[in-house]
Amino acid sequence: MLVRSTGQTLAHQLALIFAERIRNRLLAPGARLPSVRECARQQGVSPHTVVAAYEQLHAQGLVEVRQQRGFFVRDFRTQQADMARNAPSSPPALHTPADASTLIRSMFYRKSDKPQPGMGVLPPEWLENDFLPGALRSLTRGAAAQTFSLRYGEPAGDVLFRQSLARKLAAIDLPVKPEQIITSVGATHALDIVSRTLLRSGDTVMVEEPGWAIEFARLESLGMRVLPVPRGADGPDLDVMTRYCEAGEALRPKLFVSVSVLHNPTGYSLSPGAAHRILQLANRYDFHIVEDDTYCHLAPAHATRLSVLDSLQRTIYVGGFAKILAPNWRVGFLAAPEALHARLLETKLLATLTTPALFERALAICIDQGHLRRHCERIRVRLDMARARSVKLALAAGCHFVAEPAGLFGWVDTGVDTDALTQRMLDADYSLAPGSLFHVQRPPSTLMRINFASAQDATFWKTFKKMRAEIA
Amino acid sequence: MLVRSTGQTLAHQLALIFAERIRNRLLAPGARLPSVRECARQQGVSPHTVVAAYEQLHAQGLVEVRQQRGFFVRDFRTQQADMARNAPSSPPALHTPADASTLIRSMFYRKSDKPQPGMGVLPPEWLENDFLPGALRSLTRGAAAQTFSLRYGEPAGDVLFRQSLARKLAAIDLPVKPEQIITSVGATHALDIVSRTLLRSGDTVMVEEPGWAIEFARLESLGMRVLPVPRGADGPDLDVMTRYCEAGEALRPKLFVSVSVLHNPTGYSLSPGAAHRILQLANRYDFHIVEDDTYCHLAPAHATRLSVLDSLQRTIYVGGFAKILAPNWRVGFLAAPEALHARLLETKLLATLTTPALFERALAICIDQGHLRRHCERIRVRLDMARARSVKLALAAGCHFVAEPAGLFGWVDTGVDTDALTQRMLDADYSLAPGSLFHVQRPPSTLMRINFASAQDATFWKTFKKMRAEIA
Repeated sequence: MLVRSTGQTLAHQLALIFAERIRNRLLAPGARLPSVRECARQQGVSPHTVVAAYEQLHAQGLVEVRQQRGFFVRDFRTQQADMARNAPSSPPALHTPADASTLIRSMFYRKSDKPQPGMGVLPPEWLENDFLPGALRSLTRGAAAQTFSLRYGEPAGDVLFRQSLARKLAAIDLPVKPEQIITSVGATHALDIVSRTLLRSGDTVMVEEPGWAIEFARLESLGMRVLPVPRGADGPDLDVMTRYCEAGEALRPKLFVSVSVLHNPTGYSLSPGAAHRILQLANRYDFHIVEDDTYCHLAPAHATRLSVLDSLQRTIYVGGFAKILAPNWRVGFLAAPEALHARLLETKLLATLTTPALFERALAICIDQGHLRRHCERIRVRLDMARARSVKLALAAGCHFVAEPAGLFGWVDTGVDTDALTQRMLDADYSLAPGSLFHVQRPPSTLMRINFASAQDATFWKTFKKMRAEIA
Repeated sequence: MLVRSTGQTLAHQLALIFAERIRNRLLAPGARLPSVRECARQQGVSPHTVVAAYEQLHAQGLVEVRQQRGFFVRDFRTQQADMARNAPSSPPALHTPADASTLIRSMFYRKSDKPQPGMGVLPPEWLENDFLPGALRSLTRGAAAQTFSLRYGEPAGDVLFRQSLARKLAAIDLPVKPEQIITSVGATHALDIVSRTLLRSGDTVMVEEPGWAIEFARLESLGMRVLPVPRGADGPDLDVMTRYCEAGEALRPKLFVSVSVLHNPTGYSLSPGAAHRILQLANRYDFHIVEDDTYCHLAPAHATRLSVLDSLQRTIYVGGFAKILAPNWRVGFLAAPEALHARLLETKLLATLTTPALFERALAICIDQGHLRRHCERIRVRLDMARARSVKLALAAGCHFVAEPAGLFGWVDTGVDTDALTQRMLDADYSLAPGSLFHVQRPPSTLMRINFASAQDATFWKTFKKMRAEIA
């Protein structure tokens, strides 16, 4: 990483590396920098160089010194909030080293072109196809471009797209009328619409743990109380859910958020028995369920879905296209009980008015002409091969699979603290997804999530082994 | 409207008309249907026919009878909430006849091709142009389509678009770095990001009254306390603002939402003196200001903006393209103090992840090549002519302008209750924007907002005069 005689001192180069990580939140507020001795060893420089680099960071206000404990990343959130409110500085809040911003920023952090096993999506080259640009072009030619630009679209979303989605959902045994569907800015926005509609600040929500930390952070930012439910191979821990439900009227959960099929990060899929018992519990204790089926396009046929068993009585189904076709189009949707439709639609309109019909209609074309189905088949075959290869490499690197490999993600035990490992791997331009990010409280963890599509690279695993050995 | 011998009875036809309005919330929950006698006269049918129609609506559960008072639209919100929660039915809540849903639905209600003076946007044919489809096509050809589809865009928005916006803002004397800009799903989403970032449920917000009711509804749905500040020709009423600010720590407003230039619905633009005093107040009482500059493309040169005076210290500037180019693209943005950037960006990412870069880059092309500027000039000339003609027609129809005509909207006094007038005009397929919709408490009003671009139609004004005479 550090190069002698580039016109910059080694200390300055090192300071720049840390400064960039801090600004991109790859080193989170409150995180401790490596000790001088440790950093010197890692970077192959003298302790003097490290001290000089840390001093530069300190002079820039990026880190602070804590007596006897070393250098820590300064907490800008607290500072900014104070500055923003023009209030006297309150004592810095205690933040866990890896917060939601860190996770989100690392999702979008792209420093190198190396395959990134920490990524949450398929590599762009996997998604390439002819039909998508074709569909887009057919809608930007002639009068069509005006049609899809110059007036607000239908409030609930493009009607042909909703009809296509209804047919698509019928194929997984979920009979839905187009009128029950509301389109959104990606599945994330659909989840946001559901929680803003069904919950008030202070309400209690059950989530799966490990789970999708951006969902946890979103709920917390809306003022919700987030209750983690351990997720096992068959489904969530029903005893824990029952205990939460019996905690008394004030604390009773209003919503359960679940990725039933190819759960992130474990790859687990719900069993029919567990699904039935969750719905019984939802009926007994009167909570809603939002089923996030983000990974449906990679799922095996006949996967069990809560929405299907329940026929959308107290479940809301959420889907999207970021994992299979066009992450940047930001097209998602929800299908909900008819009784909730008007309220959910109002929430969508209040937050964004409508959504762009151009992308929705283009996806309708891809669905109706069978392009999406064939694309999914190709991707699944390719992913099966990638998974077999990645599993072999991970095992050879001494990892242990905590969950049976399936779908896009592997959930592996590395044997070392993965927060520390993530920092070390950044030195080699690899961004990981450490286990702490998938837990509500972000405890240290030896687990990490790998993306099977981008973990086939022997060079990555070689670097991984080297770095792990240095930490262990 | 009603046609004899179409194979449907007159009563059934009449029931269908009311049913559609109720479902589209053009007749809001809690609203009273016209008396039997009144309806019979309006529709030119016998009272028996009206009774038969109302009975059909009752049988369908759309209306309820209140002893001695007539037929009322049933309150589905309360019912749905109850059904959704599976709880015993609580007594129906008291709703004002025109709620936010009504406003929003009427925004998107398009029954006929007649010009609609109640609309909030320019007619689509005004927006037509060559450069926008051209920019779109250049980005959907060849490899570009993949570039703008297959990977998540920059978290803050397309970088070239943010650079174009920064140059565009410099032209109105607002020096902003591209790094201070965050793109959004239309200006509405930008306002949503700001309020979710700066406010917590229960916080107090000042809004201008009359004002943009969707903003009121959005803030209320987030649990905020909305305080109306009367908006005059020069700006908001500073005495009222001061009283709110002095109401004590717990109630002290955290935010003021303002449309400074070409205010909706009055067309007023802020004076420099008022702007200065608002900023003094904001400094003294420590609140933020979000300046919604939605109508900037129609604004005169040298208009006064709070963000410009303040140099984005405690103001956040919001803009969009729905009123000038492409409502359905849903592209908006905010420019904020650097100290708030990280928190605002996190809110955006939590709610929608990124936004579609394709539209953002296409708009950058339209801006950079001068197309947007020339388009705005053409639109302003056309709007000036339309305004002159519409004002004449409105005056000739006996309306009185409450505010000096300017920009897109006229704020006129009709002399009759505009909620009642709106219902009558629907009979002739015209959708109005009655005064009640622009007030936090939705009191009855004789005012209405007209869109100068679509109020040039003599037929509309003829119908208007006829319906008004029937009510008066």
